[in-house]
Amino acid sequence: MLKQQNILDYSVGEDAQLFLLLTKVEKKVTRTGKEFLNLELRDISATISAKMWSGFEIFFHSASDGNIVKLDCKFDEYNGTPQLIINRIRLANESDGVSHGDFLPRSQRDLDEMKREWNEIIDVLTNEHLKTLIQKIFDAETKEKYFNVPAGKAWHHAYINGLLEHTLEIIKICKTACDIHPELNKDLIITGAILHDFGKTEELSYETNFDYTDKGKLIGHIVIAAMRIDEKAKEIPGFPEPLKNQLIHLVLSHQGKLEHASPVIPKMPEAVVLYHADELSAKSNAYLNVAKNDRQGESNWTNFIRLAETAIYIPPMDDDDNPKDSLFD
Amino acid sequence: MLKQQNILDYSVGEDAQLFLLLTKVEKKVTRTGKEFLNLELRDISATISAKMWSGFEIFFHSASDGNIVKLDCKFDEYNGTPQLIINRIRLANESDGVSHGDFLPRSQRDLDEMKREWNEIIDVLTNEHLKTLIQKIFDAETKEKYFNVPAGKAWHHAYINGLLEHTLEIIKICKTACDIHPELNKDLIITGAILHDFGKTEELSYETNFDYTDKGKLIGHIVIAAMRIDEKAKEIPGFPEPLKNQLIHLVLSHQGKLEHASPVIPKMPEAVVLYHADELSAKSNAYLNVAKNDRQGESNWTNFIRLAETAIYIPPMDDDDNPKDSLFD
Amino acid sequence: MLKQQNILDYSVGEDAQLFLLLTKVEKKVTRTGKEFLNLELRDISATISAKMWSGFEIFFHSASDGNIVKLDCKFDEYNGTPQLIINRIRLANESDGVSHGDFLPRSQRDLDEMKREWNEIIDVLTNEHLKTLIQKIFDAETKEKYFNVPAGKAWHHAYINGLLEHTLEIIKICKTACDIHPELNKDLIITGAILHDFGKTEELSYETNFDYTDKGKLIGHIVIAAMRIDEKAKEIPGFPEPLKNQLIHLVLSHQGKLEHASPVIPKMPEAVVLYHADELSAKSNAYLNVAKNDRQGESNWTNFIRLAETAIYIPPMDDDDNPKDSLFD
Amino acid sequence: MLKQQNILDYSVGEDAQLFLLLTKVEKKVTRTGKEFLNLELRDISATISAKMWSGFEIFFHSASDGNIVKLDCKFDEYNGTPQLIINRIRLANESDGVSHGDFLPRSQRDLDEMKREWNEIIDVLTNEHLKTLIQKIFDAETKEKYFNVPAGKAWHHAYINGLLEHTLEIIKICKTACDIHPELNKDLIITGAILHDFGKTEELSYETNFDYTDKGKLIGHIVIAAMRIDEKAKEIPGFPEPLKNQLIHLVLSHQGKLEHASPVIPKMPEAVVLYHADELSAKSNAYLNVAKNDRQGESNWTNFIRLAETAIYIPPMDDDDNPKDSLFD
Amino acid sequence: MLKQQNILDYSVGEDAQLFLLLTKVEKKVTRTGKEFLNLELRDISATISAKMWSGFEIFFHSASDGNIVKLDCKFDEYNGTPQLIINRIRLANESDGVSHGDFLPRSQRDLDEMKREWNEIIDVLTNEHLKTLIQKIFDAETKEKYFNVPAGKAWHHAYINGLLEHTLEIIKICKTACDIHPELNKDLIITGAILHDFGKTEELSYETNFDYTDKGKLIGHIVIAAMRIDEKAKEIPGFPEPLKNQLIHLVLSHQGKLEHASPVIPKMPEAVVLYHADELSAKSNAYLNVAKNDRQGESNWTNFIRLAETAIYIPPMDDDDNPKDSLFD
Amino acid sequence: MLKQQNILDYSVGEDAQLFLLLTKVEKKVTRTGKEFLNLELRDISATISAKMWSGFEIFFHSASDGNIVKLDCKFDEYNGTPQLIINRIRLANESDGVSHGDFLPRSQRDLDEMKREWNEIIDVLTNEHLKTLIQKIFDAETKEKYFNVPAGKAWHHAYINGLLEHTLEIIKICKTACDIHPELNKDLIITGAILHDFGKTEELSYETNFDYTDKGKLIGHIVIAAMRIDEKAKEIPGFPEPLKNQLIHLVLSHQGKLEHASPVIPKMPEAVVLYHADELSAKSNAYLNVAKNDRQGESNWTNFIRLAETAIYIPPMDDDDNPKDSLFD
Repeated sequence: MLKQQNILDYSVGEDAQLFLLLTKVEKKVTRTGKEFLNLELRDISATISAKMWSGFEIFFHSASDGNIVKLDCKFDEYNGTPQLIINRIRLANESDGVSHGDFLPRSQRDLDEMKREWNEIIDVLTNEHLKTLIQKIFDAETKEKYFNVPAGKAWHHAYINGLLEHTLEIIKICKTACDIHPELNKDLIITGAILHDFGKTEELSYETNFDYTDKGKLIGHIVIAAMRIDEKAKEIPGFPEPLKNQLIHLVLSHQGKLEHASPVIPKMPEAVVLYHADELSAKSNAYLNVAKNDRQGESNWTNFIRLAETAIYIPPMDDDDNPKDSLFD
Repeated sequence: MLKQQNILDYSVGEDAQLFLLLTKVEKKVTRTGKEFLNLELRDISATISAKMWSGFEIFFHSASDGNIVKLDCKFDEYNGTPQLIINRIRLANESDGVSHGDFLPRSQRDLDEMKREWNEIIDVLTNEHLKTLIQKIFDAETKEKYFNVPAGKAWHHAYINGLLEHTLEIIKICKTACDIHPELNKDLIITGAILHDFGKTEELSYETNFDYTDKGKLIGHIVIAAMRIDEKAKEIPGFPEPLKNQLIHLVLSHQGKLEHASPVIPKMPEAVVLYHADELSAKSNAYLNVAKNDRQGESNWTNFIRLAETAIYIPPMDDDDNPKDSLFD
Repeated sequence: MLKQQNILDYSVGEDAQLFLLLTKVEKKVTRTGKEFLNLELRDISATISAKMWSGFEIFFHSASDGNIVKLDCKFDEYNGTPQLIINRIRLANESDGVSHGDFLPRSQRDLDEMKREWNEIIDVLTNEHLKTLIQKIFDAETKEKYFNVPAGKAWHHAYINGLLEHTLEIIKICKTACDIHPELNKDLIITGAILHDFGKTEELSYETNFDYTDKGKLIGHIVIAAMRIDEKAKEIPGFPEPLKNQLIHLVLSHQGKLEHASPVIPKMPEAVVLYHADELSAKSNAYLNVAKNDRQGESNWTNFIRLAETAIYIPPMDDDDNPKDSLFD
Repeated sequence: MLKQQNILDYSVGEDAQLFLLLTKVEKKVTRTGKEFLNLELRDISATISAKMWSGFEIFFHSASDGNIVKLDCKFDEYNGTPQLIINRIRLANESDGVSHGDFLPRSQRDLDEMKREWNEIIDVLTNEHLKTLIQKIFDAETKEKYFNVPAGKAWHHAYINGLLEHTLEIIKICKTACDIHPELNKDLIITGAILHDFGKTEELSYETNFDYTDKGKLIGHIVIAAMRIDEKAKEIPGFPEPLKNQLIHLVLSHQGKLEHASPVIPKMPEAVVLYHADELSAKSNAYLNVAKNDRQGESNWTNFIRLAETAIYIPPMDDDDNPKDSLFD
Repeated sequence: MLKQQNILDYSVGEDAQLFLLLTKVEKKVTRTGKEFLNLELRDISATISAKMWSGFEIFFHSASDGNIVKLDCKFDEYNGTPQLIINRIRLANESDGVSHGDFLPRSQRDLDEMKREWNEIIDVLTNEHLKTLIQKIFDAETKEKYFNVPAGKAWHHAYINGLLEHTLEIIKICKTACDIHPELNKDLIITGAILHDFGKTEELSYETNFDYTDKGKLIGHIVIAAMRIDEKAKEIPGFPEPLKNQLIHLVLSHQGKLEHASPVIPKMPEAVVLYHADELSAKSNAYLNVAKNDRQGESNWTNFIRLAETAIYIPPMDDDDNPKDSLFD
Repeated sequence: MLKQQNILDYSVGEDAQLFLLLTKVEKKVTRTGKEFLNLELRDISATISAKMWSGFEIFFHSASDGNIVKLDCKFDEYNGTPQLIINRIRLANESDGVSHGDFLPRSQRDLDEMKREWNEIIDVLTNEHLKTLIQKIFDAETKEKYFNVPAGKAWHHAYINGLLEHTLEIIKICKTACDIHPELNKDLIITGAILHDFGKTEELSYETNFDYTDKGKLIGHIVIAAMRIDEKAKEIPGFPEPLKNQLIHLVLSHQGKLEHASPVIPKMPEAVVLYHADELSAKSNAYLNVAKNDRQGESNWTNFIRLAETAIYIPPMDDDDNPKDSLFD
């Protein structure tokens, strides 16, 4: 794991030697005809733009988006926004011992523990059709992507391993629902939970930045998952057609409403459970992140959050009236 | 507990002696000038209309909606709908050993167990302000109503003790959410869950039938609960104003959207958790009830359910393809 | 083709010998314990219910929904609705020379001409990838279903061969759009048009009646088509991934809006053209059918049409003011 | 009343000695480590930001939001926006003879006249229950706040005494409605009008700036008013329960639609009258203010007004065609 | 004015001689081939269907919808709905002294008084352009229709002279608004109020029944009024174009929202005032009518009113708690 | 036709002599009291702002919006946006041989060919009423405006002659629909298409810039067209009233939905055809323009297009996978 000071913690005028991830690189020309490099870079804490005014030709011909680079630079600002002025830059090489994962935010839960939890969930499935289907879908490469991909670009669980963390939360909630209602088809719900956002492995790119792929924008993760289930179930002899349809139904309907891009609404109790468990996991993660990161100065409120259609309230912390204090009464 | 055959299980032409609950009684006149009694009655399984053609004067002057009656009658039908022809009728008396509870649907969970569960939840609250508030609100009479009232007229948990069952489910789900996110204010969420539908004790009448009260229609259970919290918190010295506002906020916002009659939308992580836990409990109960009760003949579907905006799918049960079978593989 | 008088043209009291399609059959018991058969039957003009009071045991054990039957009956009415009283009934056999097609409404366009038109459209596609894909998808059995299936249950092109007629109309309109805008990818649009409602071959059953299948209700024709394209394109070596994504995008987005069950909205000019061509074909067919069939007596209006959210106006025909007359001035 | 030139009327470079209201004060550090004060100030005409570069330590430790200050400053501009550079600053003291009211916009109607009008309305109420309730709610302190508070932050009657002016307009309109329909319960409507926005006394802060309180954002003025009515009515022996429910209903439903944050919609003729009278008063005030203040240069239109979802048209004034001229023909 | 007992007040089996208005007449044939007349008739209290079994040939050839008839009949019922069995029937003639007005509901306000009020409003207009326009539009025939037409088919002011009554109410409310805001263009608002529903004179037919005309359904009263204003203003030399556009704007925007069929939303303070005054007049009339006519037995509620999206509450009348009683304390 | 380099193609620092269209001119004063001219100018490619610091008095007194000017200037930039610094400026005169048309975007189709096509469409109308109406409406001056006006300000066909081009496209599509459904009233549809956006001749100004007129904003093109049809049809003896109503209906309903500002929705098959043909023409033009002009660098996507509610996808062009390449296989 890379150890260096976060770019958010530098001040204007400081010099630095840093490894950063290159998310955009282009050559531009000033109005007066002078060429320069314009770059976008990121570390784990933030994104920053940078300029390089000379000596970049060799680098420019070898570099492309997604490369890790090492640079010698000074922190500057332009129109009130921080930027870097680069003196020297080179591509990172193997001996530098850095990897893309050093530059992207990441779930705070332990990955191995999450993998173990996920494997145990599969192990105790009793429906052999569903178990086989999961094994077929998750070859080594797919599993790797699935374990790494964030659950979204910005709103909830928007960090490496985020989809896995999100999926485990949903399953925990679904199990509570199955405790309450033992008549629910637990294996179907759990398989639906595992696969509901599976399509995000193809909808999102996350190696160098979190963004939507062309396929993601044209088709969307919901239908991508449906197509994969259909394809793999066909390869399993005797996979029951009604079961396949139910599972695809759970995936298609998991956003609950047509206007949220589900092409069918939930038509089974199991689908309704999955929909609301997904909502609970996504919204509580999103609101808690916002409350942690977007507080406005000393106000009790964050700024306005478009997806929540409101600012979020953060109870006063250092106050006798603070209800949390009472936990220690 | 009353033991008698359900009215749903009688056939046309059968005679019966039954205790039933009187939900409407009126004297009418035929076009030809003949007076008769028109009644509506119910047992625990259904509602039925009835006619009585003579000898009803004394009864009519003593009877009113909500009385339990004993009658001697014959099952008849009119325009394809079952009705009773009453020969003799009288008000039930104490020695009959029947009570209103014998005629209204009721949660299938054990009431004492639910009460115990509810009490334990209160006991382990660590926030003394909230604990005191709950004790103040729940005097013996109020607790009695709260334990009995259904959670609604028809859609979910629409039976005696339904609100209690529903509240316990929500708390179970909220606890799962607090396990996932220990930074949530658990006592606030649980108190919010306990009180979120408290207003239904005044919004609904359920002694003789499940219906809305005038107050319920004019004010609604959400604001009724808010008023009660405000009133009782004011009686507690030192109850923190921000805590009161947060708790009222959780109650007001628990339906999640303005168009669902919440006058504010959730603006705290705790409010979002409560909203989605409520949805999960309500919808899974409603869909499972529909799937159990509204299957259309041998079809795999119920009839169209207006509140779900769809028919509900019921997987084939006696089929090799049935995914549930795999539970016994 | 079966020649017999339409059931709509019989009067109460008439006797008849008819071939009809059995759409429901069940044994029922009267309140007084007498068994009888309750049936639903249809010919090409209408659906009718029927009762048989004796001598039905052998028939009942061999019959099931979708059989063609021959019967000897009398036209009766019950509560103002026509019904049949059956004297004798048997399953039709091969020598009767009748088939399901004799009992279901059917496009008024010549089927062979429509097939020829469809084949010519495929022939002149210049994009070999798309041409190959269509050939792979349309094996003989699939083509047969595709040529027969109605485009819907009730609203537009709701008759045998309706999907084919609808598809040809869309292509005609799309060609006009391509004449106006030669920069459009014509082959992509035409392939999108051919496949846009392909999923209806699995979403609808139309052999004995027009209805939705379980798969249709759980998944919907849009995603069914997407899954099939994905599956078949994978079998074609070198099929370009972007082209596949674009084609699936056209199919997914052809209902134009999320709330109309498209999981993505149109994001390409070709998708927008297909969406609006589909609307034009569907709505003009639906409105013209309504105007032809639902006129209210001598009024200039049909009754209220729910899907149009209005009654439809039919200009007075026998009137000097009638604008159509001017066509013959 | 403070007499000084409005800040809107100064030009860049001018020096000034001014009393202003401090709405925000914070110490900041430049990237180069230099501390400075960053302030927001307002007079009756506008809000302005300010910087102070030295000599602010003593002031900073005594100042807080809402203080009135006296300052010696120069008008400057930054990125095209006016700002002040402060040389000297001190808190105002009693001998300065200034008060918060000197810095906030205010109704143009005479306050004493409005109070007199309001008192007369109460005096002629004939329903003693309602009259007593109003007297109980409006203790001296509450009345003071109620007479001062604006009706909103920005849209209509958004100035000191605005709620009072708005309430009197509504009552005038309601009286017209009662003239038309004498069967309306006039006392109920008038009491509803008086209390409909009562909650704004707690929802809004207006001493130093117009803003929402935490309580206002978490609960909202509608429910705040309902809670107060409930509380006070309980203190009045014999206050009729149905009357209380009706009055609360009028308050809760006065925004007319769930999506406008009313938790119930109007269910009584009196509630419908109050809702539309409120709309008429609010919208005509808002549109006239916009037309007066937001005209775009010599155009006949204001800029786009988000809450009106349109620009507002202002008929040409100096024109023979101007319809207003005709008033003097 | 016709004096006869209302048809609502007859019982089954009674014989009667009545004048009624014929709203539909058709010859039908029973399944057994017998011809009979099927009619719809109305008096001022209700509509009733009727059958005539013989002796109707001569009548049938002279009668048509809208004729007043005299008949000799017996009150019968069919499927629980009252109907008439006609023995003899003839068209009314002049000497019968009856007119259509005897059979249609009518405003309870005095017509002459309303006309006088309307004329006085026109008289005091000071804008000569607008005054001339009104005089040009209201020739004798048009004025006659305008004074008679109902304001709608069923919802508010749905009776003869209803438009006039409604218009006078709006003007009264608008005058109150002009008292509050003297800067409003009063003549423009009043002229807008007079003409806002003018198009209903062509949108509705009301001679024999209240219904929409073909023109009304195809064009709507809003655009009909706009076309008439445009036409008549063009005939007035020197009528200012901006004034015409403003007036048409008030008419077009008076339903306030696009989804309420206004093709533009209000963009002037005067338009906003007219819109809300219209709402206030319409809704208070509609809710009061419903409360008067649709009470459900002894309940405090009417049945569900679709246009109000709720049942309407009617406070208990004979109750000490009744707030209206307090008016006489 | 003016020949000069487009302003988009100049770089900062270049001098130029240009003819431009003056779209705004005003005298301003700097904070330090110095007067200067502030102007907005456009050529056929773009709009640019400009400043002139001295020697502008004579020019300023003669100039007004919409003048063509000749200027001597230098390209500069301010806050990153290009602007002109003007040295000398004068009004263009006749001998300069320039006209407004040189500065506004224009359809790429040949105008004479479009006029010819339009005339031929009128010629073959067989309904003499409609033909006469079109001739009456289109006097020489009106036809000139109609042929020149753009179809909108910015979204589709937003260039000189755009309405004509758009109208011809719609007619082409409608003819295809009439080929499919010969029972449609073709003359009515075509006349509806010709007149559907006729009101844009009064709704838009396009001589110096594309903008809405006051009349356009207050009344809208839909009702303007309806008023003109009504006016002109009244001048034609014997023009059938139902035909007029139908034609106006087609115009009023052509935006298909109330919320799209149509005061009535389509109630005839012909109206539905016109609505969808209009959509197809408008949307395909708009999306193709966006795809051509708004590509984001080397991305396959344009930026977000508000009216499309999405970014638009542009398939990769230089790629083996590109489906368009297959046209040349």
